[in-house]
Amino acid sequence: MVRKNKKKTCAILIIGNEILSGRTVDQNISFLASWLNSYLGIKICEARIVQDIEKDIIKNVLELSKKYSYVITTGGIGPTHDDITSKSISRAFKRKYSFNSEAVKILKKYYGNEFNDPRKKMAKMPEGSKLIYNPSSAAPGFIIKNVISLPGVPLILKSMVHNLKKYLSPGKKIFSKTIKCKTVESQIANGLEKIQKKYKKYVEIGSYPFFQQGKIGVSIVIRTAKKNNLQSCHKDIVNFLKNKKINIARGI
Amino acid sequence: MVRKNKKKTCAILIIGNEILSGRTVDQNISFLASWLNSYLGIKICEARIVQDIEKDIIKNVLELSKKYSYVITTGGIGPTHDDITSKSISRAFKRKYSFNSEAVKILKKYYGNEFNDPRKKMAKMPEGSKLIYNPSSAAPGFIIKNVISLPGVPLILKSMVHNLKKYLSPGKKIFSKTIKCKTVESQIANGLEKIQKKYKKYVEIGSYPFFQQGKIGVSIVIRTAKKNNLQSCHKDIVNFLKNKKINIARGI
Repeated sequence: MVRKNKKKTCAILIIGNEILSGRTVDQNISFLASWLNSYLGIKICEARIVQDIEKDIIKNVLELSKKYSYVITTGGIGPTHDDITSKSISRAFKRKYSFNSEAVKILKKYYGNEFNDPRKKMAKMPEGSKLIYNPSSAAPGFIIKNVISLPGVPLILKSMVHNLKKYLSPGKKIFSKTIKCKTVESQIANGLEKIQKKYKKYVEIGSYPFFQQGKIGVSIVIRTAKKNNLQSCHKDIVNFLKNKKINIARGI
Repeated sequence: MVRKNKKKTCAILIIGNEILSGRTVDQNISFLASWLNSYLGIKICEARIVQDIEKDIIKNVLELSKKYSYVITTGGIGPTHDDITSKSISRAFKRKYSFNSEAVKILKKYYGNEFNDPRKKMAKMPEGSKLIYNPSSAAPGFIIKNVISLPGVPLILKSMVHNLKKYLSPGKKIFSKTIKCKTVESQIANGLEKIQKKYKKYVEIGSYPFFQQGKIGVSIVIRTAKKNNLQSCHKDIVNFLKNKKINIARGI
């Protein structure tokens, strides 16, 4: 039984040569991280991108599933020869790689007379998996133990996360505020370090330089599970910036 | 001494909470992968994204540097408290974390009277490192053993790769061709699998569905170090598509 409000952690495992060759820019990490964080208070602690190689997938699935509350894999659950995620996860957990009868039913209905062998492959997964329904293109994802497999195509993945929710128990909500200011990092580094020390591990203060429409600046991001700390840390940083006569940017 | 034309491998280690929180979409993996592949024949075999936590950085740097010819880290070499890459890599390799005299000279010249403590921090790195010059904002990256540290800001990173080249010995050039066709994956899965089997491990055939301006299709990507194989595999796939009466797309 999973306790609510416990710290929940997650790793993302992107499976696909197309990301590592530079051909495709991954969009799933950023989407999943924002979604898990904002809606469920689940923190992504690590992400890995690996090739379509069975032993690499097995090794990483086992390592990450031991370390975190959840692992989400993306990619490699389609109909072609390079889609080997379901088979690899079956082997990782020593489960039979077999047809899921509900998935067969869904795909049969969707494809009708065109339910050919490659499409049938999309109904094969580790025995005992539960389905994550796909309102976009039918072929479901699945969850086995704490590992969730979703497709790699961002549009399809996005359409499925609503159906994933019921399998995830929420963690602590993370609150966040961003202060954009017209300065350079080295002007504020010492001050921010002092404020970070004051709040210790309860607040995470990040500093990120940016260039936007010919202007340079720094985004200071405050993240914490404690709402009170968010307000007072925000106030401390704003006061510090005012004392240094640094403008807090509006509209940049 | 490094032999030319040997297989060269690389891992990328992205260091930064901002990527894992979903706030920022990583652009460096895709850029570095394309650049290393096309110009130097170095293959990215794995990428990892980790938090700004010293023990995580140390563990991953050591693991990856043992496994691959090169490791490129991005992020965490700026002036603020959350920039801990240089210190962590020093600890990973048990090197002193100290001022690099050449880096001090470069930064002193660049900042003049405004060479304050946070900026001085950017000249600290593992003892024995060589510099990777930064034509964009002066603060250099560094290389120690087979680990290369670059900044996280994509614009600055891009400006530096030219200066990184001399430290990397090229691997085998990888040739690649893409065939876009108006079909769905399950129509071509069996045929592609047969062709993949014919070329075994010498050619990597990837299949990627796409949606573009309301049209759906599949990109078939052929990648190999052997130019002859590229031509004949390409021909086999084109013939297979023609036999199946599948249109090879132009302009989609």
